[in-house]
Order: sequence, then C-alpha cells, then structure tokens
Amino acid sequence: MSDGETGPEVVERLYQLILSRRGTDPEVSYTARLFAKGRRKIAQKVGEEAVEAVIAAVDESRKNLVGESADLLYHLLVLWADTGIAPGDVYAELRRREGTSGVDEKKHRK
Amino acid sequence: MSDGETGPEVVERLYQLILSRRGTDPEVSYTARLFAKGRRKIAQKVGEEAVEAVIAAVDESRKNLVGESADLLYHLLVLWADTGIAPGDVYAELRRREGTSGVDEKKHRK
Amino acid sequence: MSDGETGPEVVERLYQLILSRRGTDPEVSYTARLFAKGRRKIAQKVGEEAVEAVIAAVDESRKNLVGESADLLYHLLVLWADTGIAPGDVYAELRRREGTSGVDEKKHRK
Amino acid sequence: MSDGETGPEVVERLYQLILSRRGTDPEVSYTARLFAKGRRKIAQKVGEEAVEAVIAAVDESRKNLVGESADLLYHLLVLWADTGIAPGDVYAELRRREGTSGVDEKKHRK
Repeated sequence: MSDGETGPEVVERLYQLILSRRGTDPEVSYTARLFAKGRRKIAQKVGEEAVEAVIAAVDESRKNLVGESADLLYHLLVLWADTGIAPGDVYAELRRREGTSGVDEKKHRK
Repeated sequence: MSDGETGPEVVERLYQLILSRRGTDPEVSYTARLFAKGRRKIAQKVGEEAVEAVIAAVDESRKNLVGESADLLYHLLVLWADTGIAPGDVYAELRRREGTSGVDEKKHRK
Repeated sequence: MSDGETGPEVVERLYQLILSRRGTDPEVSYTARLFAKGRRKIAQKVGEEAVEAVIAAVDESRKNLVGESADLLYHLLVLWADTGIAPGDVYAELRRREGTSGVDEKKHRK
Repeated sequence: MSDGETGPEVVERLYQLILSRRGTDPEVSYTARLFAKGRRKIAQKVGEEAVEAVIAAVDESRKNLVGESADLLYHLLVLWADTGIAPGDVYAELRRREGTSGVDEKKHRK
C-alpha cells in the first residue's frame, strides 16, 4: 500500500471529497465556493487551468506542468461532479474506444 | 472483462499505449503523428480539447462532456508522455495536497 | 491614404465582408462555412485561435503572434457578426471605460 | 466628443495608454502590474479572457460578449505592447490577406 497510495485511487478519493462539499458553506472550502458559483464559473476555471498547463508545457517546465495538471484534474472533477458525471463514466468512454484497432487509430479516422 | 475494467486502470493502459507510439510511423497512428508534430502542437490540442469541454459543459450537454473529457484526458496523457511525466507523478502531486486541511482548503489559501 | 490603408478601417472592411457571407454557399467561402456550423463552432474557433496566440507569445515568436492575432481577430469578428454585435459596439464599450481614472485603473478596481 | 469617437481610434488611444504604463508603478495601475508580471502572465490573461468570451457566446449573452470582447481586446493590446507589436502590424497582416480572392477564401485553402 505504500507506493500504491500514489496510484489512481487518489482521483476517486478526491472526487468523493468534492461530492461531499456540495451544498456546504462556501466560506469554509474553495470547492463549496466553486459549486456555489455555478456551472459556467466551474467551466471557466477548467479553461483557465488548461491555459496554464499549455503555458507550462510550451515553457518547457516539467515541474510546473505536474502542478498545473493536478489543478486541471481537480477542476475537471468539480465540473464532472456538477454535471452528474463520475470518473467511471469517463473511464468507460476511454475503454469503449479501446478496441481492435486501438484508441489512436479511432482518433485518426475522426 | 468484468465491470472492474472500466476502473482507472484504463488510464494507465492508455498511457502505456501512447508511450509505445513514440517514434513509430506517423502515417499509422494519430498518436505517433502528434509526437512527430512536437510539444507545442500537443499542448495546443490540450487547449483546444479543454475549450470543447468548456463549451459542452456550458451547453448543458452531459453526454458531450463525457466525450470531450475523454478527448482532453487522452491529449493530456500524450502531453505528459512527451514531457516525461507519468500519471503517477500527477497522482503523487494530488496526494501531496491531501493533508490535514484537505485539498480544497489548500486551494482556498492560494 | 497610402499608409493609412493599413489603418483600423481594414477591420470594418473585413467585418462587412464577413456579414456579406452570411447565408451564402458554404462550399465557396470559409466564412460561410463557419456561419453554417453555428455559434458553438464559431466560439470554439475563437478559443482555439486564442490558444495559438498564447503559445506564440510564450514561445517568444513575435512574427507568429502577429499572424495568430490576425486569425483571432478574424474569428472574433465572425462571432460578433453571428451575435449581432458590430465592432462599434465594442469600441463604445472600450470608450465607456475611458474616464477620469482611465481604463486600467477601472480594471484595477475589479 | 461626437459619436465618431466610438470609432476604431479608441483602440489606438488605448494602446498608447497601455504603452505609457510600461515601467510605471505596479501599485498604481492594473496595466503596469500586468507588465511587471511578464509575458507568460499577460498571455495567460489573454487565454482566460478568450475562455470567458467563448462562454458568453455559447451562453447566448450578447451583452456579456460585448464586455468580454472588450476585456479580450484590452489584454491582447497589452500582449502586443509587451511583444513590440503595434495595432498597425496586425492591420497590415489583415490587409495583406485581403486580395483578389478575399480573406475567407485564403483561410479556406489553409
């Protein structure tokens, strides 16, 4: 469980924490404040964090890209929570695209 | 083949597939073509997919948001692969932020 | 009038050209095709061109930034046309913000 | 003071104001603070304002789109100023694309 704790289960744990913040006091947590601001504001934050990740990547900063990617995933999870999407729904979509010819060839045909 | 296969391990599997495309024929896979185009183009695609996810979210389209989120994750994984970042590095960052006061309170202080 | 022709009137001329494309054959012009695809697609293109401008700027490429800025302005004009906004409406908003304390101080208070 | 003043000259006036803020006290104006933060931060703001414009457009809010477009243009002007680009450079690029076959057909060929 030692190293395994930095496995993907942290995503599910974070998602559950996010869900637990819905409807709680916006003064207490940033997540609750995001929910209170609504869908558009949450989506806006996802867009902003993506821009920051893009800048970190072009700027050749590996370390910043890890941090910005974590920010992006967190805000994406809040957006999913607000829309009734569970991480498993997106995993299922990724899996659906895995097929005989693979994800990337499917994209290729797009 | 059970339902468990729609768990987060699909992300690691996809990441390994992406890694395996590095340096392969750009004519054969979309992923190889992305690598061939380089960091800036991959980052650009991440930004574009984020914009599409934002539009799907504001547009109240849950189904589109699942698909756009899958596209965004896929391109983010390619960007990570191009930068030498493994999913575990980002999970570790998310876990590092989990602490006494929680991820969202930490964000709150930002 | 010689050098003046690279003045801001090119924006109004471009906007009038764009307006004239509404409802024309999507096969003939890119602008007509954008209109046919609708608001969301036009907005998406604005977001994509902004990402490209951001990358050009961070990448220290002055020349690319000129080109990407022209692309961004063009798509923004199409979005305005699709929404019933004239360039003069945005100029009026910029002018409204010009005041005793100036645009930037107003922003400062935001 | 006539209505003509809501013409495109407000853009040049704003650009000159922005230029005059370079190197001045970041405490006094938002523009000076942007310059002090540097290229990446200015580019990031352009990306963020574009995301807000996209959301306003998809959200069918004409009024918000005027405001967000003004924000976007202002930050784009700051980015141009920081990169040594004058509005006339971008107008010249737009004009260069005006030709026998028009801007949109050129885009079409891209």
